Amino acid sequence: MFPIDKETLEMTIARLGIVDISSATIRQICALAAALEQEAGEDFVHLEIGNPGLPAEAIGVEAECEVLRNGIANQYPNIAGLPALKDAASDFIKAFLNINIPGRCIVPTVGSMQGSFTMMLLLGQRIPGRDTILYIDPGFPAQRSQSKVLGLGSASFDIYDYRGKALEGKLDEMLSAGNVTAILYSNPNNPSWINFTEEELEIIGRMATKHDVIVIEDHAYLGMDFRTDFGHPGEPPYIPTVARYTDNYILLLSASKIFSYAGQRIAVVAMGEKVFDREYPYLRSFYEMPTFGDAYIFGVLYTASSGTAHSAQHAMAAMMRAAVDGRLNFVDNCSEYGRRGEIARRLFTDNGFHLIYSHDGDCEISNGFFFTVGYGEMKGDELQKELLRYGISSIPLHSTGSWQEGLRICVSMLADEDDIDRLSSRLAAFDRDFSAKRG
Amino acid sequence: MFPIDKETLEMTIARLGIVDISSATIRQICALAAALEQEAGEDFVHLEIGNPGLPAEAIGVEAECEVLRNGIANQYPNIAGLPALKDAASDFIKAFLNINIPGRCIVPTVGSMQGSFTMMLLLGQRIPGRDTILYIDPGFPAQRSQSKVLGLGSASFDIYDYRGKALEGKLDEMLSAGNVTAILYSNPNNPSWINFTEEELEIIGRMATKHDVIVIEDHAYLGMDFRTDFGHPGEPPYIPTVARYTDNYILLLSASKIFSYAGQRIAVVAMGEKVFDREYPYLRSFYEMPTFGDAYIFGVLYTASSGTAHSAQHAMAAMMRAAVDGRLNFVDNCSEYGRRGEIARRLFTDNGFHLIYSHDGDCEISNGFFFTVGYGEMKGDELQKELLRYGISSIPLHSTGSWQEGLRICVSMLADEDDIDRLSSRLAAFDRDFSAKRG
Repeated sequence: MFPIDKETLEMTIARLGIVDISSATIRQICALAAALEQEAGEDFVHLEIGNPGLPAEAIGVEAECEVLRNGIANQYPNIAGLPALKDAASDFIKAFLNINIPGRCIVPTVGSMQGSFTMMLLLGQRIPGRDTILYIDPGFPAQRSQSKVLGLGSASFDIYDYRGKALEGKLDEMLSAGNVTAILYSNPNNPSWINFTEEELEIIGRMATKHDVIVIEDHAYLGMDFRTDFGHPGEPPYIPTVARYTDNYILLLSASKIFSYAGQRIAVVAMGEKVFDREYPYLRSFYEMPTFGDAYIFGVLYTASSGTAHSAQHAMAAMMRAAVDGRLNFVDNCSEYGRRGEIARRLFTDNGFHLIYSHDGDCEISNGFFFTVGYGEMKGDELQKELLRYGISSIPLHSTGSWQEGLRICVSMLADEDDIDRLSSRLAAFDRDFSAKRG
Repeated sequence: MFPIDKETLEMTIARLGIVDISSATIRQICALAAALEQEAGEDFVHLEIGNPGLPAEAIGVEAECEVLRNGIANQYPNIAGLPALKDAASDFIKAFLNINIPGRCIVPTVGSMQGSFTMMLLLGQRIPGRDTILYIDPGFPAQRSQSKVLGLGSASFDIYDYRGKALEGKLDEMLSAGNVTAILYSNPNNPSWINFTEEELEIIGRMATKHDVIVIEDHAYLGMDFRTDFGHPGEPPYIPTVARYTDNYILLLSASKIFSYAGQRIAVVAMGEKVFDREYPYLRSFYEMPTFGDAYIFGVLYTASSGTAHSAQHAMAAMMRAAVDGRLNFVDNCSEYGRRGEIARRLFTDNGFHLIYSHDGDCEISNGFFFTVGYGEMKGDELQKELLRYGISSIPLHSTGSWQEGLRICVSMLADEDDIDRLSSRLAAFDRDFSAKRG
């Protein structure tokens, strides 16, 4: 029965050993929602986690089963990656981003999580004294945790106040400190679903070059700015990227959302050729491998896990190749998230919520995997807790590095009409009880 | 044509960017052997890498294909591990080691490489000031690299001089420094194939308890001390382990060699219950998770890769369950390595080589995956280079932390009579040319 009473909520939080709900990991929030479902005897509406809500691409599944049956499971994968995957990824990046990266600069990782974790480790080593990751927030909380766990420094600012030309002064100021080795962001952005404009990407690229900083551009939601159709290989429009404006870039492309393949933990890290081939005195002495690319593959990735599951590499290769050949339109397949996003956004705004990150330049943001909402002047963590009582699970924006008060809403798990009806009636019940706070 | 001349060898080493062959990684040595194969126009005998030389267990392959076809690829695996795998691993450890570890303390990792990498990271944090891993050498070079890449300290000694009772004084002395957080070794040992005696395991366990140090016991070659048949679940004799002598233990069990499943990068980390549940002030403040086990799963593993490929977890669960039920005798399946080891050892000793690590207590070592050889007074790296010229690839003992002069020989790739004939004739040619050095 909703709403759950406050004591039950607090007791459940304590029972799960969650010290501070506003800084709990997403997985802890999932566990909390699961425990509260037991208490309430009713299913929650899960808006907290970005599990792909679509079936895995069949081409990947078929490729995995075929190579497994052909006897690949006993052979260590090449630590630099399956050649077929390296080539397919190179062609994929050319076809959809119109950027040239040779296969030798592309390496599979155990999801983009391993990609950013291992990259941060090396980026924190390449130039002594440069040990800080600059996050353009809001962002994916787990990536912020990565630099912390690795003992690196972190810096950040909320893009909310620095869109357009204002971005240049802010970046120039923060990079002038000289301690930043890399800038990290995702585009489309998790959690706000903003997309950088070409003007903003140009600024980021130019500032990266000026300050000798490397940009890690996370394309977890590649092509999912549904305001433009990016689904046609080898034809404009191409997916925006900072790689058009600097040589100092590393792209992360994960199969998790693009191909609904999160379970198999497969992604590629694609290093710009100049990033890959650059030599560093420190890497020469520490790894006995002077180039960044070699130190990454044979120094870092080798020690982190000795590669990525062999069959999953074949799956990723087959899916990328099919996308390049026009046999798999991943943009079209993922457009379902745009539909769900549109419905969910309307339910929130119809019930007194407002969109927080709302525009890219003059355009309203795209519908997609995430959006951000506030309710009157309510604090984000208070809003999160109160919605939990009504059977709706989400994460507060503060946990994403945002300075705004509100929530990240993820629509991936809104699978059917029942979910949407539940969300609708619970938001209405919440708004009835809290409308005084709307102001 | 063998022998390859010295200039060609040196030029090839330089061309591959190998700064120092004696400290090159195994993967670099593989690349070097491949390049020399091109030069010579003849296949090498590959004794350098431990690729499983047996087909993957079919039970694992079938389990993976089944769950993939049932649609698991789109779902993030539970970060704590698939419940069926946690339960199967608990039963497996009970059946073959006679040790009780509940499933909640067992977590899948991307091979034992990720297991030791991520464990070292956390072990280096648990008690401020304790940031050093003590390696009982010789050992797997990649594990030594792990602590280095993570910025941890390392200490080591060569077990060669400290077998039996001598081990106690050495451990007591090294642990008294107070900076060691964990001891790491593999048993059977990579590269020397020694097995600790019960007396030695008791000493290690007692010293770990005395000095509050945690033992990481790597069972990569579980049950492969073929002097004893450990292949019967739930029946003595049980596989030796330090877990009988201390509560401070973490076991690594990889599918790579036990089930010939290296390609899918799947292993489990099994923490003793007291290790898992112990609370640390530092972990409470840093991760907001006081217990070691929670910090490991939700703090470290989550940031390192967000889990391990879903289908591979099902494969491991199915193979462990089948072993527990007596349907899969992995010890018997792996005994082929014992047969190859016996043949290869005889070929080396028949051609003037001597065994370096030769006994456990009063018993000669087991035949198996590895053994160690020297040739007269020749230095290890010199011997490695000269054998490369004769088409035999190996790694020098110094790279494994041994203070002895010689080589690690791995027999896993000696697949057929042709390989054995090639090894035989090349060793004979080498011994003809170098017998003066035998002394």
